[in-house]
This record gives sequence, structure tokens and C-alpha cells, in this order.
Amino acid sequence: MGIVSETSGSRPGGRSARVRAAVHHAVEDLVAEGVRTEDLTIPVVAARAGVHATTVYRRWGSVAELLAAVAEHRFTGDVVVPDTGGLGGDLERWAGDVARDLADPDSLALMRASIGAGETASCACTADRRAQITAILDRERARGGAVPEVDAVVDGLLSPLYYEALFVPAHERGPAPGSRVRALVGNLLGQTASLTP
Amino acid sequence: MGIVSETSGSRPGGRSARVRAAVHHAVEDLVAEGVRTEDLTIPVVAARAGVHATTVYRRWGSVAELLAAVAEHRFTGDVVVPDTGGLGGDLERWAGDVARDLADPDSLALMRASIGAGETASCACTADRRAQITAILDRERARGGAVPEVDAVVDGLLSPLYYEALFVPAHERGPAPGSRVRALVGNLLGQTASLTP
Repeated sequence: MGIVSETSGSRPGGRSARVRAAVHHAVEDLVAEGVRTEDLTIPVVAARAGVHATTVYRRWGSVAELLAAVAEHRFTGDVVVPDTGGLGGDLERWAGDVARDLADPDSLALMRASIGAGETASCACTADRRAQITAILDRERARGGAVPEVDAVVDGLLSPLYYEALFVPAHERGPAPGSRVRALVGNLLGQTASLTP
Repeated sequence: MGIVSETSGSRPGGRSARVRAAVHHAVEDLVAEGVRTEDLTIPVVAARAGVHATTVYRRWGSVAELLAAVAEHRFTGDVVVPDTGGLGGDLERWAGDVARDLADPDSLALMRASIGAGETASCACTADRRAQITAILDRERARGGAVPEVDAVVDGLLSPLYYEALFVPAHERGPAPGSRVRALVGNLLGQTASLTP
């Protein structure tokens, strides 16, 4: 990878954006390659990105803050809120995308590294999820349908998918993602007591 | 902390156990002190434990394997399966203990570090949980009661508690742990469709 020029360039914003992209990519690449956590240091990231370590220290301060920034960028806006015409279909489509995202080895590696780095980076891994759920529920409300609470969707749909990704070895997983998501949504919406008009 | 003798001692098992305890404690202490993941290296652990780094390399091989061993030891058998006379009470007591365990900053720090170290160490954090759930459900079956599937308890009770510990900042948490656990158990057991006699 080439050196990102840190002195030339008439557009500081452009240089700054290039440095950020190079550093983010370096982190994503190193994590995807399975770098050991104790080897993911700022000098290693800087060398891979082709920038000076002092630049990385000055801008991000620590590996934890750098991972938080990369995770927030990676996990924000990567899942589109669908419109299938009904709440069950919307939740299935959305949760299917979340499950696919969590099943991607590179995403999972980044999430593991971020969780290891502390609370800020850890929470960045779910940055947009509540907003996405809220948007899905608002759309169903606009259709005149009854909806569960956001918290009920987090508990009944999001939590099982994240738990499985982090704590269940692939060979011990249950049904295929599609039917797994359908069962969770069915279970969630079957809890009619939790629906509010 | 004193140096653990690696040459004297007439009981090799005793020395081996002492080295293991010293190394485990060193890892737990360093993680609890908030060591940065990139600074949790085998030489650092060995120095803290008062043993030679080669001993640690030979026995555990890597920081990831060491964290897996510490997490498995820490999270195995730390939660007692209760007998309150009924399934709802048993699950509430048990999940309350799990939630308290996850709320302990040292346990959470160890879990974060273990998740960051990869799948083996990550899965060690939930080592005993399925067995504990199975024991609770078996007891209720012996009482003649209907029980949910183990997977339903993992999804409906365990997953939300782990998700919350990892991804929800403390200041954004909902109700107090006790009422939170009661609501989850009530929701789980209210799903009568999932109960099997």
C-alpha cells in the first residue's frame, strides 16, 4: 500500500479524509487477517496505512478509540430499513440482513475486537439498530397496525442474533438463518400482550 | 507478588497448580485494572505472575488460549442452580445471579477481553449456562410441570442479559435488574405455545 502524503495537497479536508480512509482500512484488514489483539497497536496500524504513527495518536489517541470509530462507521447505515407492506415481513427482512451481517467473518472479527476494546467501541457495534427498529415500528403504526415496544424487539430479535454470533460455535448452531429469523419474529409478534395499538 | 518457585517442590502437581493459579490471577488482575488489549501480552502476564514467560508460552501457547482457560474457569460453576419449588422462581433466581455476575465490572472486563481474543475464549464465557438451564428444566419436569425448550430460555432470558451487558451503556439501562429479570421470565413462561409437557 502506498504512502498517503501528509504534507502536499491543497485541500486539507481531502487529505484528512484520505488519511481516515487509509487508517480505517488498515484496521479492518488487520482484524480480518486475524491479528492477535496484543499485536493490534497504533504503530502497526500506522505502518499498514502508510501514515506516521504520530498522526494516528494525535487523531484517535488509542486503539480503543480507533476501533470505536471504525466500528461505528462499519455498523452504521449498513442495514436498510425495508418496506414489504407489513410488520412481520419488514422485521424478517431487516433481521435477516442483521443476521447475514453478523455471519460475515470480517464483520464478526471487527465486532469481537471492538468489544474487547471496551464499552465505547462495543456499543458502537449496535449504533443504528434501535433507530432502525423505531423506523420499522413507526411505518407499521402509520399503516394503522399494532406494534411491540422497541425494547421487546431488541430482546426478542436482536439479542438472540448477537448472542448466537458471539457465543455459539458455528457447528452448534440451530436452523438456517432464514427459518431462525422467521421463528423469532413469529414468537415476538405472537406475544400479543406486548402489542400496543 | 512473590516469585513462584519453578524448580523446588516435591509435588509437581502442587507446583503446576500454583503456577496456574498465579497466572490466572495475573490475567484477572490485569484485565480488571483495565489493561489495554494490546498491552496484555504473555511477557506482561508472566512478569505479574512471577513466572518465566517460557513457562506461560509452553503451557498456554497464546494470550487467546490463556484467556479461554481463565474465562472457562471463571464462568464455570459460579452460578448455583436453585430450587425454589417452581419453574418461575428457579428461573428468576438463576437469571438474577447471571445478571449480577454480568454486572460485576471485573467479570465484564474478563468477558470483553475473552470475546476480543476469538471464538474459543468467547464461547468459554457461557460454558455452563446451557447445562444450568437443562438442570432447571429437568427439575420442573420431575415436578410434573410443563417446560419451554432450552433454546427458548437461551433466546428469551440469557440473550437479552448478555446483549445488555455488552452493548447498552449503564446510563441507558431500563428497570432495575430484579424487575427486568421478572419481566423476561414472565414473558418467556407466558409463551404457553412453546411449553411441552
